[in-house]
Amino acid sequence: MKKIINNPNHVVTEMLQGIVKAHPELQYFEGVEVICKKDKKKKVGLVSGGGSGHEPAHAGYVGTGMLDAAVSGNVFASPSPDRVLKGIQEANTGEGVLLIIKNYSGDIMNFDMAKELAEMEGIRVESVVVKDDVAVKDSTYSTGRRGIAGTVFVHKLAGAKSETGASLDEVKRVAEKTITNIRSMGMAMTPCTLPAVGKPGFVLEENEVEIGMGIHGEPGVEKTTIKTAVELAEILCNKILDDYDYEGSEVALMVNGLGATPLMELYILNNEVEKVLSKHNIKIHKTFVGNYMTALEMAGCSITLLKLDDELKELLDAPCDTPAMKV
Amino acid sequence: MKKIINNPNHVVTEMLQGIVKAHPELQYFEGVEVICKKDKKKKVGLVSGGGSGHEPAHAGYVGTGMLDAAVSGNVFASPSPDRVLKGIQEANTGEGVLLIIKNYSGDIMNFDMAKELAEMEGIRVESVVVKDDVAVKDSTYSTGRRGIAGTVFVHKLAGAKSETGASLDEVKRVAEKTITNIRSMGMAMTPCTLPAVGKPGFVLEENEVEIGMGIHGEPGVEKTTIKTAVELAEILCNKILDDYDYEGSEVALMVNGLGATPLMELYILNNEVEKVLSKHNIKIHKTFVGNYMTALEMAGCSITLLKLDDELKELLDAPCDTPAMKV
Repeated sequence: MKKIINNPNHVVTEMLQGIVKAHPELQYFEGVEVICKKDKKKKVGLVSGGGSGHEPAHAGYVGTGMLDAAVSGNVFASPSPDRVLKGIQEANTGEGVLLIIKNYSGDIMNFDMAKELAEMEGIRVESVVVKDDVAVKDSTYSTGRRGIAGTVFVHKLAGAKSETGASLDEVKRVAEKTITNIRSMGMAMTPCTLPAVGKPGFVLEENEVEIGMGIHGEPGVEKTTIKTAVELAEILCNKILDDYDYEGSEVALMVNGLGATPLMELYILNNEVEKVLSKHNIKIHKTFVGNYMTALEMAGCSITLLKLDDELKELLDAPCDTPAMKV
Repeated sequence: MKKIINNPNHVVTEMLQGIVKAHPELQYFEGVEVICKKDKKKKVGLVSGGGSGHEPAHAGYVGTGMLDAAVSGNVFASPSPDRVLKGIQEANTGEGVLLIIKNYSGDIMNFDMAKELAEMEGIRVESVVVKDDVAVKDSTYSTGRRGIAGTVFVHKLAGAKSETGASLDEVKRVAEKTITNIRSMGMAMTPCTLPAVGKPGFVLEENEVEIGMGIHGEPGVEKTTIKTAVELAEILCNKILDDYDYEGSEVALMVNGLGATPLMELYILNNEVEKVLSKHNIKIHKTFVGNYMTALEMAGCSITLLKLDDELKELLDAPCDTPAMKV
């Protein structure tokens, strides 16, 4: 295993220490692995999180216009309820807190328990669950669809709404509307290695890729031979377009890298995705190309479409200032 | 070879098409492979470029406060003089143009020829050469030190100076002062594969890394066994600190990924680098962690230090808005 680490069991703590050194506007609570903003404004608090290994998600999205706190579990493991509770406490300024949860059974359970604990302390908490991945119906760690890169759009739009001083109900409504309008689909070309395990979690042959693989290496739709960018754009987009009606609409597009895929390849894919969407009379309002929701050093990508109306467009374009996204 | 591409010979063109689709504020001149800003302000023009495969360098740094045009060669191959000339022509608004060249023999030759061609057209052109890599004295493709990730700081500071309406001589002075104050040092853990070649350019054994390897896979200082983050931070920083006096000064720090190294590892390294610099009483004014100057899907990293004075600090903190850097 070739990784720039020290002790495999300390990667999350040392990473979060490294994040706040690079971003002194953020605060780190060691032990509970919570990253939050130092400067707090009275508004609805937004909390997300999950297993580590998906950087910049979620700590990289803490800042003005997106999250107020991010809670990290170990690599690919859900954070415990006490950690999530600490995130809620730090994000709370008296206006209530919205939890943005990716649909994995462990996350659902732990975030729900933390919600109950926070409510016992008198904090009003609501939650939404992101399940944007159209690849499979149920998966290794989820009942129903998995939550993947589309979650970043939920952070962005709910965060923008929260900055306007909207109520918890209003911020939740925007998060749910965003979730309704998002679909994602991905593929993987290489496995990744958990630091504490030391060897790859699965095997893909020299010329093999897996369409629809999850961000923890969960099985996808099919293993197949390596595809061209043209073919990949069609396979991934068509699966999304078959699932939700984007025809003729205006969208935000995310071409997301899983960690080890160079920007060159993501931009080549973006070039083809635009052609597919254009054939369907879909207008791209804004495109995000980069590593937004990763799986350690997995090579691969995902495509996310978010259907926009005037409200969502305004929230997407609103300013934000976080380590991983600035608008 | 597992890459998201179509024809290996068309990767640069298709990538640049994909970039302008994601960033409609940029313009692409196909054939000469130049990316420039659509909105031009009367000011000294800044042009950089070089072989492709180092994305987001350099097209990702075109925008307000950084470059006015980026010129791409084929993968790891210098752009021809006619391409560079087109970049100069597009960046010129009558105030002259500064070329920021990484120190590789091919780039020096082609940029110099383009400079002469532009001067024959009556455009005033000056140039600076970045040679920040302290690893080796001469290298496969360079006489003298190689230019690597530190180049991004030259784009940033010269770009900020140019935005103030400064003269070509003043912008050049800032670029040269920046270059004087920059040192970088890197290491590689895996090779990368040129699309048109189809197999890795060199071999590193399962537990082997190369200290000081260049961003085209050029030989470094030594092949050795994999190091911890603590050891790596010391090896890379000490080589830099032995070369230039940063003791007690204030710096900008870049922890750069070479393409396939996850953010998790870069932040863990950042955590250790801060400790080493702190021991030398070096104050970090601003930290940049991410993929700023890559080598396709190579795994590895580099550290860059820029010594700041009041002038450079102000230019570093000045706003910029480009695909790959927003301040």
